[in-house]
Amino acid sequence: MQQYRILIDCTDKKGLVYKISKLFFELELNILSNNEFVDSDNDKFFMRSVVEGNIDEQTLKAKLNEVLDANVNLHLVSPRKKNIVLMVTKESHCLGDLLIRYEAGELDANIIGVVSNYDLLQPLVEKFSIPYFCVSHEGLDRQGHEHKVLECLSQFKELDYIVLAKYMRILTPTFVQAYSDKIINIHHSFLPSFIGANPYKQAHERGVKLIGATAHFVTNDLDEGPIISQDVIHVNHDHSWRDMQGLGRDVEKVTLSRALKLVLEDRIFVHKNKTVIF
Amino acid sequence: MQQYRILIDCTDKKGLVYKISKLFFELELNILSNNEFVDSDNDKFFMRSVVEGNIDEQTLKAKLNEVLDANVNLHLVSPRKKNIVLMVTKESHCLGDLLIRYEAGELDANIIGVVSNYDLLQPLVEKFSIPYFCVSHEGLDRQGHEHKVLECLSQFKELDYIVLAKYMRILTPTFVQAYSDKIINIHHSFLPSFIGANPYKQAHERGVKLIGATAHFVTNDLDEGPIISQDVIHVNHDHSWRDMQGLGRDVEKVTLSRALKLVLEDRIFVHKNKTVIF
Amino acid sequence: MQQYRILIDCTDKKGLVYKISKLFFELELNILSNNEFVDSDNDKFFMRSVVEGNIDEQTLKAKLNEVLDANVNLHLVSPRKKNIVLMVTKESHCLGDLLIRYEAGELDANIIGVVSNYDLLQPLVEKFSIPYFCVSHEGLDRQGHEHKVLECLSQFKELDYIVLAKYMRILTPTFVQAYSDKIINIHHSFLPSFIGANPYKQAHERGVKLIGATAHFVTNDLDEGPIISQDVIHVNHDHSWRDMQGLGRDVEKVTLSRALKLVLEDRIFVHKNKTVIF
Amino acid sequence: MQQYRILIDCTDKKGLVYKISKLFFELELNILSNNEFVDSDNDKFFMRSVVEGNIDEQTLKAKLNEVLDANVNLHLVSPRKKNIVLMVTKESHCLGDLLIRYEAGELDANIIGVVSNYDLLQPLVEKFSIPYFCVSHEGLDRQGHEHKVLECLSQFKELDYIVLAKYMRILTPTFVQAYSDKIINIHHSFLPSFIGANPYKQAHERGVKLIGATAHFVTNDLDEGPIISQDVIHVNHDHSWRDMQGLGRDVEKVTLSRALKLVLEDRIFVHKNKTVIF
Repeated sequence: MQQYRILIDCTDKKGLVYKISKLFFELELNILSNNEFVDSDNDKFFMRSVVEGNIDEQTLKAKLNEVLDANVNLHLVSPRKKNIVLMVTKESHCLGDLLIRYEAGELDANIIGVVSNYDLLQPLVEKFSIPYFCVSHEGLDRQGHEHKVLECLSQFKELDYIVLAKYMRILTPTFVQAYSDKIINIHHSFLPSFIGANPYKQAHERGVKLIGATAHFVTNDLDEGPIISQDVIHVNHDHSWRDMQGLGRDVEKVTLSRALKLVLEDRIFVHKNKTVIF
Repeated sequence: MQQYRILIDCTDKKGLVYKISKLFFELELNILSNNEFVDSDNDKFFMRSVVEGNIDEQTLKAKLNEVLDANVNLHLVSPRKKNIVLMVTKESHCLGDLLIRYEAGELDANIIGVVSNYDLLQPLVEKFSIPYFCVSHEGLDRQGHEHKVLECLSQFKELDYIVLAKYMRILTPTFVQAYSDKIINIHHSFLPSFIGANPYKQAHERGVKLIGATAHFVTNDLDEGPIISQDVIHVNHDHSWRDMQGLGRDVEKVTLSRALKLVLEDRIFVHKNKTVIF
Repeated sequence: MQQYRILIDCTDKKGLVYKISKLFFELELNILSNNEFVDSDNDKFFMRSVVEGNIDEQTLKAKLNEVLDANVNLHLVSPRKKNIVLMVTKESHCLGDLLIRYEAGELDANIIGVVSNYDLLQPLVEKFSIPYFCVSHEGLDRQGHEHKVLECLSQFKELDYIVLAKYMRILTPTFVQAYSDKIINIHHSFLPSFIGANPYKQAHERGVKLIGATAHFVTNDLDEGPIISQDVIHVNHDHSWRDMQGLGRDVEKVTLSRALKLVLEDRIFVHKNKTVIF
Repeated sequence: MQQYRILIDCTDKKGLVYKISKLFFELELNILSNNEFVDSDNDKFFMRSVVEGNIDEQTLKAKLNEVLDANVNLHLVSPRKKNIVLMVTKESHCLGDLLIRYEAGELDANIIGVVSNYDLLQPLVEKFSIPYFCVSHEGLDRQGHEHKVLECLSQFKELDYIVLAKYMRILTPTFVQAYSDKIINIHHSFLPSFIGANPYKQAHERGVKLIGATAHFVTNDLDEGPIISQDVIHVNHDHSWRDMQGLGRDVEKVTLSRALKLVLEDRIFVHKNKTVIF
């Protein structure tokens, strides 16, 4: 028996659940889990089904297309390990968290490479027998460096997602477009949020009582892409900015790993810069 | 157009979603929201649909019964204000929280009475023009007192739920059975949990770093009914047990109100001492 | 035996704890609790002591001034119920939470009045026998209205704190200066924060996974005063903006009450737009 | 200039702060941070000072002993890297979290060895060039196995703390006494707590809405030692017990690392099975 994850989003209208479930019934597909959501503000219908049965993938897709309208987004996925590349700069907390999960077999993905603008984390990555690519930015302008990074990435023919695990350089629209909807970032976003250099120092100066992190898809609006996951931790006046950074790192790594898990399980729809997550 | 909340639970089998959604389609009912869950450990199917359309309630019920098996639990509810009675002893935090929501029109229910074994909270309740019934336990044994409470409650012909908003007396199986699945309690449950007199004092002595609260349906196993909602708050050595009690009260009141909201919106299935909440 | 709360802040230097504790010892004052904090970035020393003993307040103050330098901030407080005025607009959740605590004797303060620009909450407030002052803004410009509010407040000769319990009008610098360090506000601040009309609607459109609240002292920078307390709650795509508002209200009311408790217990120092809280 | 962490606990009495701070002043020690707490229920005084200055450690200790009573607990620590041994069974999440921090230089300790009753985690540990000792329990009774573990540990002459990073065997009183106050454990404790095999499965069956973890010192009462740190995460009916286990692991690893940090910074007093943490 084969399993499929079927993700459908389209304009809402009467009878969608009926038509889709009728097809599953006729094809003798067993529904293992089923989630629907209607965004009534935008008149949009979202559905994610995990089904099990014996049918050819092409046929299933064709049949679904028959039943559904032309302007429907349909993603049919046989659950499989996805290929991911991690990008890092100097900090190891998010990278390390993913490596430990990977080693334990808890990450449903192949880490096919780690790309960095420094060689600092090479020893750590190579302990886990994962190829490390150092693409230094020194002596290069932003475009020049990014061009070399894109070149490096181009060797991965089957790349599903890029995880910015504390990659501290800003991506240009060219990069973002090349991997549209495929880049996940972790952002140290605070309450109120702090932009620019050393956000934890800024947060400390502001005297916040909470620090947090946001995992999101990357779009051209820096730190403004669709939010996947967020969390916070309480702090007080007694925490130095380095203490805050330390606490923030724990929130960052757990939030990023949680978001990546949702991505790898094909649980996320993106619509109008928001996520629907089943 | 009429709205209905349709709650179905039964043994899982192929085609359930198809058959139900087919009926909705034929009856021209528009699905506003739809949730399904399959408990594969217990082979159980749960579905909650909110639909909108023009059809007589009896007809809809009959049609659903036709399509579904005999051993299906079907709850068809036209969204309406439910009638609730609050039971209290001496503490006002949960009661007060519900009264303020009630006054603001934020509680989708009619509070038709407050029953207590003390008269202490009568002045507060009567500010809100709600009848207060003091059924003192003095000079009575447990059964004798409970008999009088049941007598008092029997005057409410259309009573949907009883909310134990810090009612500090243990209910007998007779009482629980009389209002089976209709009693909601808030329990100061800790990590580790403390049973018996003055739980906050016990928690303080144990040196916990978290205190919490659990809202649950009441069954004969004291404090062991299906859990609806839980929350916690961090504490430290500097908190006296009275501080912990104060902080705990905030958790208790918010947790109880949140659970009651889920109950009033018909979002909860109970199965095998667990809840499925949509 | 009398109790005193002694709050001292000054430039840090060697021997401060020694000099102060020596004085307490000589005056036979028993230290019930003692907290110190050195802000080494700013070279500032903060100390809060609760002491018990038999000595005249003037003498104690004089002795402390003798020991400490001229440029020391010294607050000597006999624990007493402070007088507070609540300011509200149309929402009752924060107001109601404070009223219920007040009624239960859990708020260590006298609510000497509630001021609003609407008469909507008058019935609620008067249930608790607290004077309500409606100062309508209709037909008045900002300054004109605020002038009338200040006039209204001027009747309270012994006013310790003003609590903006969802007062939805912006205060001018004149107002803020008139009650410098005495105004506490609750702000629906999100991650990322949203400014302007209907923040919950904005947060919903942004697709946040957390909503929060910040209690702070009011300064001339709107929503930028020293933060006292912050908290958040998790939300998801299934929450409408009205759901978010409902959840947010629970966070707001608990966060404001918690902050007010810290204020009333004289636990807060403000320095450089930050708080030190013992 | 030398730094010292001075931890004092004794029966509370007047003048303690004065006497101690007087000594610091006379010895020209600068107080970097100072915390006091009086447990008035038990009439106990706790103080932790970080001081800086030029004085011989023996002299400082002698002077403190002069000033303080005979029955005072005095710990004088020059901040230094402590030596720790990790004990594990099969799960790598807590171990891995500590290894990544260690590699990044964020753990203020030397991991001098990892001891396990399986060889499963040997490859992971050896990536980080840390000695791994597999002491199999096969064919041995509890005492026999523990005897061999104690033998293995006896090689570490300067062992400060043993961290049970998911070591799944119960320690006997002999072991606990041998390393009294030096063993830290992470316990998957739930609300309500579940004891015995597969706690996450039990929690899932109970239908909890929160799962949590507790880091504590180990005493002879299993899972009943002084609590250092606790945290929880929200779950719902849709989480399988394996999902809960996965989420629980994140709480476990962060809670254990946070507790270990407090231990390594000499921030914890233990008294009457409770912790005072500065």
